[in-house]
Amino acid sequence: MIRAGIIGATGYAGAELVRLLLGHKEAEIVWYGSRSYVDRNYADIYQNMFRLVDDVCLDDNMEAMAEQVDVIFTATPQGLCASLVNEDILHKVKMIDLSADFRIKDVEVYEKWYGIEHKAPQFLEEAVYGLCEINREAVKKARLVANPGCYPTCSFLSVYPLVREGLIDPGTIIIDAKSGTSGAGRGAKVDNLFCEVNENIKAYGVAGHRHTPEIEEQLSLAAGEPVLINFTPHLVPMQRGILVTAYASLRKEVSYEEVKVVYDHYYKKEFFVRVLEKDVCPQTRWVEGSNFVDVNFKIDPRTKRIIMMGAMDNLVKGAAGQAVQNMNLLFGLDETEGLRAAPLFP
Amino acid sequence: MIRAGIIGATGYAGAELVRLLLGHKEAEIVWYGSRSYVDRNYADIYQNMFRLVDDVCLDDNMEAMAEQVDVIFTATPQGLCASLVNEDILHKVKMIDLSADFRIKDVEVYEKWYGIEHKAPQFLEEAVYGLCEINREAVKKARLVANPGCYPTCSFLSVYPLVREGLIDPGTIIIDAKSGTSGAGRGAKVDNLFCEVNENIKAYGVAGHRHTPEIEEQLSLAAGEPVLINFTPHLVPMQRGILVTAYASLRKEVSYEEVKVVYDHYYKKEFFVRVLEKDVCPQTRWVEGSNFVDVNFKIDPRTKRIIMMGAMDNLVKGAAGQAVQNMNLLFGLDETEGLRAAPLFP
Amino acid sequence: MIRAGIIGATGYAGAELVRLLLGHKEAEIVWYGSRSYVDRNYADIYQNMFRLVDDVCLDDNMEAMAEQVDVIFTATPQGLCASLVNEDILHKVKMIDLSADFRIKDVEVYEKWYGIEHKAPQFLEEAVYGLCEINREAVKKARLVANPGCYPTCSFLSVYPLVREGLIDPGTIIIDAKSGTSGAGRGAKVDNLFCEVNENIKAYGVAGHRHTPEIEEQLSLAAGEPVLINFTPHLVPMQRGILVTAYASLRKEVSYEEVKVVYDHYYKKEFFVRVLEKDVCPQTRWVEGSNFVDVNFKIDPRTKRIIMMGAMDNLVKGAAGQAVQNMNLLFGLDETEGLRAAPLFP
Amino acid sequence: MIRAGIIGATGYAGAELVRLLLGHKEAEIVWYGSRSYVDRNYADIYQNMFRLVDDVCLDDNMEAMAEQVDVIFTATPQGLCASLVNEDILHKVKMIDLSADFRIKDVEVYEKWYGIEHKAPQFLEEAVYGLCEINREAVKKARLVANPGCYPTCSFLSVYPLVREGLIDPGTIIIDAKSGTSGAGRGAKVDNLFCEVNENIKAYGVAGHRHTPEIEEQLSLAAGEPVLINFTPHLVPMQRGILVTAYASLRKEVSYEEVKVVYDHYYKKEFFVRVLEKDVCPQTRWVEGSNFVDVNFKIDPRTKRIIMMGAMDNLVKGAAGQAVQNMNLLFGLDETEGLRAAPLFP
Repeated sequence: MIRAGIIGATGYAGAELVRLLLGHKEAEIVWYGSRSYVDRNYADIYQNMFRLVDDVCLDDNMEAMAEQVDVIFTATPQGLCASLVNEDILHKVKMIDLSADFRIKDVEVYEKWYGIEHKAPQFLEEAVYGLCEINREAVKKARLVANPGCYPTCSFLSVYPLVREGLIDPGTIIIDAKSGTSGAGRGAKVDNLFCEVNENIKAYGVAGHRHTPEIEEQLSLAAGEPVLINFTPHLVPMQRGILVTAYASLRKEVSYEEVKVVYDHYYKKEFFVRVLEKDVCPQTRWVEGSNFVDVNFKIDPRTKRIIMMGAMDNLVKGAAGQAVQNMNLLFGLDETEGLRAAPLFP
Repeated sequence: MIRAGIIGATGYAGAELVRLLLGHKEAEIVWYGSRSYVDRNYADIYQNMFRLVDDVCLDDNMEAMAEQVDVIFTATPQGLCASLVNEDILHKVKMIDLSADFRIKDVEVYEKWYGIEHKAPQFLEEAVYGLCEINREAVKKARLVANPGCYPTCSFLSVYPLVREGLIDPGTIIIDAKSGTSGAGRGAKVDNLFCEVNENIKAYGVAGHRHTPEIEEQLSLAAGEPVLINFTPHLVPMQRGILVTAYASLRKEVSYEEVKVVYDHYYKKEFFVRVLEKDVCPQTRWVEGSNFVDVNFKIDPRTKRIIMMGAMDNLVKGAAGQAVQNMNLLFGLDETEGLRAAPLFP
Repeated sequence: MIRAGIIGATGYAGAELVRLLLGHKEAEIVWYGSRSYVDRNYADIYQNMFRLVDDVCLDDNMEAMAEQVDVIFTATPQGLCASLVNEDILHKVKMIDLSADFRIKDVEVYEKWYGIEHKAPQFLEEAVYGLCEINREAVKKARLVANPGCYPTCSFLSVYPLVREGLIDPGTIIIDAKSGTSGAGRGAKVDNLFCEVNENIKAYGVAGHRHTPEIEEQLSLAAGEPVLINFTPHLVPMQRGILVTAYASLRKEVSYEEVKVVYDHYYKKEFFVRVLEKDVCPQTRWVEGSNFVDVNFKIDPRTKRIIMMGAMDNLVKGAAGQAVQNMNLLFGLDETEGLRAAPLFP
Repeated sequence: MIRAGIIGATGYAGAELVRLLLGHKEAEIVWYGSRSYVDRNYADIYQNMFRLVDDVCLDDNMEAMAEQVDVIFTATPQGLCASLVNEDILHKVKMIDLSADFRIKDVEVYEKWYGIEHKAPQFLEEAVYGLCEINREAVKKARLVANPGCYPTCSFLSVYPLVREGLIDPGTIIIDAKSGTSGAGRGAKVDNLFCEVNENIKAYGVAGHRHTPEIEEQLSLAAGEPVLINFTPHLVPMQRGILVTAYASLRKEVSYEEVKVVYDHYYKKEFFVRVLEKDVCPQTRWVEGSNFVDVNFKIDPRTKRIIMMGAMDNLVKGAAGQAVQNMNLLFGLDETEGLRAAPLFP
C-alpha cells in the first residue's frame, strides 16, 4: 500500500486528489496537509467526504511528512514546492509537484513569467515533465515529477502528433483555450463569485498567460526547433473542463485519412487519449470527472489550415488525475489504476 | 458475473445505470435496449462511453432479453414494464422496474394519478418497494422490485424516523422539494431547453404531482394510519440533485439530542444515509454522482415545528444507484458494490 | 430634476439603483457613495456603465451629501443608516433606507435578531415601511422610508390578501423561499464562488433567518393578531430572482373563483403585481430585470390547504426597484416612472 | 407612430424585438406574426409580457401585413423572407430581414453555403447590409435592409478598423467565437436541452459555419481584396452573449497608442461601440441586454500578432437591437431611440 501525503489538500486540485486516491486500490492518504485548516476535520471543509474521511488537516511540514509517506503531492501555488524540497526529502520519498516549479527547464524563463526567484534550480534538470503519454519511461525512473499544467496538457496533446511529424508549421500555431472556473482555485475573490462568472465569458492573460512558455517549451522539444505561439485562455461559466481550439497552417496538402493515421499512430494505444471519429467535435461534457482527453481535428482546404481540438477535465487529466497516473508509473502499477471511472453525464 | 439487460438505456436514468454497472465488479451489461436508437452504437448517443462501450442498441424485446440475462432493468416511462412483464419472464430473471408501475399497491390510486390502465395488476402484491434501507429483507427474496421514485426516496428517508416513532403529527407534513433538470428526462421539449431552465425556478405539478400518492402510501405504512401530505416539486437550474425541505408539527417538546438519537437509531448503520452534524444543512453538491442521501433537521421552538431536510443525487440514489443497490441485494452481493465512489466536487 | 445620492453604490443593490435611475426621466445621480472605492471611476467597478457614468466614487458622508441632494438611498449593511441619520439630515432630504434598520418597529426584536444595538430608535415610529402597494399613502407623506427586504416583499405580497380577508389560518403559514445568489451581495466569500454555488441548492438560516420577524410583523398587522411563521430561504444557482412557495390551512372550503376575486380585489389596479391566470405557476424568469411580482395560488382540497406562490426579481422589486417606486411616491411622480421596462427573456 | 409587423414574433429574436419595441417611443407593434401559435395570446407564449401585450398571434401573411404596417421585420429561418417579398410589398413598406437571405450579394455563395435556392435574387443588389456603423447612409435610403448575423456583427466590428487601415494581413485572420445558447433558437432539440448545454463547451460548424462567407464578404469590401478566414463558433453554457477573439499578423511594428488611435478614429463617435481602456478585456456580462459592442485589442510583440476582442449581446446588437437601430435610420429617428438602456448586471 502506497502511503501518500498531500500538501494543499483543501484546494480544488488537492480535493480531487483525495477523491481519486480514495478509489485507488493500492494507495492510502496518511497526511492531509492544509495550512489554512490545521486541526480542522477534513470532512468539515469538504462535506462530500463526510464519513469517508475521518482525518484532520495537518500542517505543510514536508520534512515530517517524508518520514511517514512514500509519495508527496504538492498541490499548492508556485514557489512553495521549490522552497521546501531538498536532497534529503527526495532521498526518502517520491515527489509529484502539481505547481509550475519544475515544469520549465530554463530558470530564467520561469523567473520572468512567474515573477519569483526559483529556490531549487538544482533539481530542474532531474525533474521529469510528467506528461505520461510523452515521457512515460522517464517518469518511471524519476524521483521528482513536474505534473503538467492544465492548459498545457490539453493544448499539447491536441497538437503534438502534427508538430512531431512536421505536418504543420509550428510558427503558425494559435491556441484558443476555454476553461471552467475550478481552474481559478478556491480563493475568495470577487472575480470568481457566481454572480460575476455566470452568464459571462471573457479572455484573460491575453498574450501573457504563464502557461505559454510551458507549452512552447514542450512544442519546441517536439518540433526540434524553437516555437513561439499565441495562447489565449478564456473563463467559461462551468465548473470543470478545458476545451482547446488550436489553429495552424498545413505544410502540405493532406487528406483526413492521412492526418487520422498520424493521430492514431501516437494515441491508438493510449487509454486516456481518445481520437474521436470523423467530424465529431470534442466536448468537455463527455470527459467530466474522468482522466480522458478527447481530441479531433478538421482540415480547412480553403485556408490550408487545420483546426485541432481537445477536451479534458482540468481537475483530473489537467491536475489530480495525471498526478495519480504519474504515481502509478513511479510505483510500477497499472497506469490506469484508480482512473478507470467513466465520465459523468449529465 | 451477473448479466444485465437494460430497457431504456439511452434515457438519463438508463445511461446512469450503464455508467454504474461499468464500474461494478460482478455485473456486465449484455443488452442495451433503446427503441429510439436500434442498431446505433451506444457510444454515438452517449459519447462519454466512446471506447468504453462497443455495443449497439437493441430493441426492447423483453422475451428475448430474458433468455440472455439474469436481471432486467426497465428505465422507461410508466406503463411499459407492466405491459411487458409476465409470469414466464419473472420465472427466468429478476426484474427491477425504475418506472412507477409497481410502486403503488392500490391499482385504483395508480390509475387515477397516472391516467392509464394498469396492465399487470396481478404482480402488484408480489412486487417489493425497493427502498433498500426500509425493505432490505423483502428485496432479497423478491423477483420483481419496484425501484422508488426520486422525490419519494429523498422525501421518505428525510421524514421516516420521526413518522415511525410518532414524534411528528403526520397530518401536518408539508414537503417542498427541488430538483435538477435531469429528472425531466432527455425528451426534446421547449420547457427543458437551456434558455428556459437557466436563471429560473418554478413550482410545477402543484397539489397534483404523481409522486404524491407514492410518498403517502409509504408514510401511511410507517405511521400506521392514512397520511395525506402536501408535496410541491420545483425545477432548479442544475443538472442533478434533489433537495427536500419538509415541515411538520412536533407532537411534544423535544430536544436536538432526542431527535438526533432517533435519526441515528434508523440510519447509523446505513452506509448510504448520512445524518449530518448539528446545524449543517444538506446540499445537493455534497452528494453529486454518489448514492448517498444526506439528511438533517432543525427544531423551531417558536412554532413547535421541525424542519427536516434531505439531499440526494436524483439519478443515483433516486434512480440508477438505488437500482444497483437493489440488484446487489437480489443477488446476495455486498450492498455497496459498484456504489462506493465518493461524491464529485466541484 | 430630483438629485439623488447613493450610499453603497457599488454593492449589487446600489448598482441596480444606478441602472434604474439612469433610465429615470426625473432623477439624476449626483453622489456615488462607496467607501471601498473612493476616488475610483464608478465605471471601472461596474464596467457595464463605461461611457454611461463618468463619475468617481465618493465617501459615505451623509452630512455633506444632504447639502447636495434631494434624496438619499442607503444600500448598505444594517446598522450604517441608523448610525448616520439625524434630525438635521431628515430636515433637508428624503431618506430611503434599503437596509433593515427601520423596518421593524419593535427595537428589541430588531436587536435580538440582528445582534446589534439600534443607534436611532427615535425614528422608528416615524419611519414608513415602504411596501408601496400596502402603505402607499403613508409613504407619500414620509421623510424616512424603510425599504422592505427582498424575501419579505415577495412573501408578504403572495399571502397578504388571504391573511387580510381571514381566509387562511395565519398560525399555519409556512413560507419556503428560494433566491438567486445576488441576494448574498458582492462580498468575496468562498460560499458564493461559482464553483460552490453552481449545481447546488441548499437551505440556510433555517428557523433563524433575519427576515422572519419582518414578515411576521407585517402579517400580524394584516391579520390583526400576532402571527408566527416558518420561513426557510434557499440558495439557488441563478443570479436574480426570488420564488416564494407558501402553505396555509384554509379556514373554510373555498372555490378557485372565490379566492381569485380576493386576489383581484387587492391587486387588480396594481401595475406591479400580476395575478396570473388559473394554473399558471410564477417563474422568476418572467419577471427578471423588472419591478413585477407575479403571484398565483392553488387550492388542495385533499389537505384543505392552499399553496400561494410569488416570483420577483430580488434586486428590483426586492430592493432597488421598490426604492425607486418609493422615491416616485415621495416626490409625487407617476409611481411607475423609470420602472416600466418589460422583463428580459431569456 | 411607426406601425411595425413582426414575422416570427415567437422566436427568441422576435421576442427580443417585441421587448425593445415596447420601450420605443415612436413605434408600436400591430402584427405579432407566428405561424406556430396562430390565435394564441402572445403573452401565453412569452409570459413576461403578461398584461403588457394583449394581442394574439397572427399568421405570417406578408401581403395583408403590408397593408397595415409601415415596417416589416422578418425574424424567421433563411428562405422565408426571400420567398415572400416582392416589388408590391417593397412599394408599401420598409423591410428589415433578420435572416440571411439578403446579406450575401453573391447568390451562388448563398446557395452553396445555405443549401437552398434563392427565391428573390432580383432584390440582392438593392438590399443594404444593415451594419449601421458601416453603412449608415445607405441604410437611410433603403427599402430592404439585410440585418447582419450575430457572429458577423461582432466579428466584423472587432477587426474592421485594422483591416480598413491595412495594419493587419487579412489573409491571417482567425476568428474564434463563443456564443450563448439563445443563438440556437427556441426549437425543441436534444442538443439544446439544459442538461446537454450546461457544464459544457464545444466547437461546432468547424470550417463550415454559414456565417463565414458573410464575414468574408464584408472583410473583402473593407480590405479591398478577397479575404478568406477561419471562423470557429463555440457553444457556451449561458443564455446571451457573443465573445469574439480574433487573431491576425501585424503588417508592421505598431504601438498600443497607434492602434488605439485607429480604433478611436472609427468608433469614437459611435454610441454603440465602446473601445475599452488599455488591458481591459471585453466580457459578455458588461453588455447584456444592451445594444453595445465592447471591443479591445492586445499586441503580442513576441509573435507579431494582434489579438482583437469583441463582446456583444447576440439578441440585441446581434439581432433585434440592430434591427431597431436600422428602423430608426430608415425612419429618420434618433439612432439610439429605444436602445439606450444600460446593460443589466448581474
